[in-house]
Amino acid sequence: MNDCIFCKILVGDIPAEIVYEDKDAIAFMDISPVTKGHVLVIPREHYKDVIDVPEEILQKMIVVAKKIAPKIVEAVGADGFNIGINNGKAAGQVVYHLHMHVMPRYEYDNLKMWEGDGYQEGEIKEYGDKIRNYLDIN
Amino acid sequence: MNDCIFCKILVGDIPAEIVYEDKDAIAFMDISPVTKGHVLVIPREHYKDVIDVPEEILQKMIVVAKKIAPKIVEAVGADGFNIGINNGKAAGQVVYHLHMHVMPRYEYDNLKMWEGDGYQEGEIKEYGDKIRNYLDIN
Repeated sequence: MNDCIFCKILVGDIPAEIVYEDKDAIAFMDISPVTKGHVLVIPREHYKDVIDVPEEILQKMIVVAKKIAPKIVEAVGADGFNIGINNGKAAGQVVYHLHMHVMPRYEYDNLKMWEGDGYQEGEIKEYGDKIRNYLDIN
Repeated sequence: MNDCIFCKILVGDIPAEIVYEDKDAIAFMDISPVTKGHVLVIPREHYKDVIDVPEEILQKMIVVAKKIAPKIVEAVGADGFNIGINNGKAAGQVVYHLHMHVMPRYEYDNLKMWEGDGYQEGEIKEYGDKIRNYLDIN
């Protein structure tokens, strides 16, 4: 854990703009914000990602996000918010201490959301079948 | 609830590629996918957003996402995943029945993630202060 920058924030070895703390989690300002007021919620215990973390901790994190997001929106004068987790390098995860992004959104922030290509004819069912096969539902 | 398209999917009035079901939630293929294999997790009960939904339901949703995301990744041959909730119009919410996006990510999908502008000198603390004022921490 020694090299984890979020663990270092947790013990105070790296400074951060902490905005919320409880016994399981803390929230602090992202230094590379997507929007002004972008906050990260992290568990006090070190887990690298959504797969690694126990369900109970993940549940605590989303409850923190639910609690603080509307207050962040109010605090910064935003109009909505995104909650997000990036899991793995391909998904944009950079720090391997699980973190949940809470990003206030402003009506005219012109932020480009993800845009996709859609499915070809029949392709949605094909992908649905692949996934159902792995989820044991038919 | 009559006009809610997700409620109509839940009762079978609108078809969907359902990939997972339990007593509290279902998951189905997004018809406007950000990436191939993009799935939405929704609660069976109608709640419009993160603010409206009880904590327990939100906790159940994220546990479903945790369970199915790695299997979706495996099913479609992806390399990671994003979990996301858009809350409010400014954040890109389109359907007002709470839904959690699970988006498999591929190493070479070239998907543009959100990009922000960063903070000016001192601005991160200024925003931190605004938020702390609303979260009662100083």
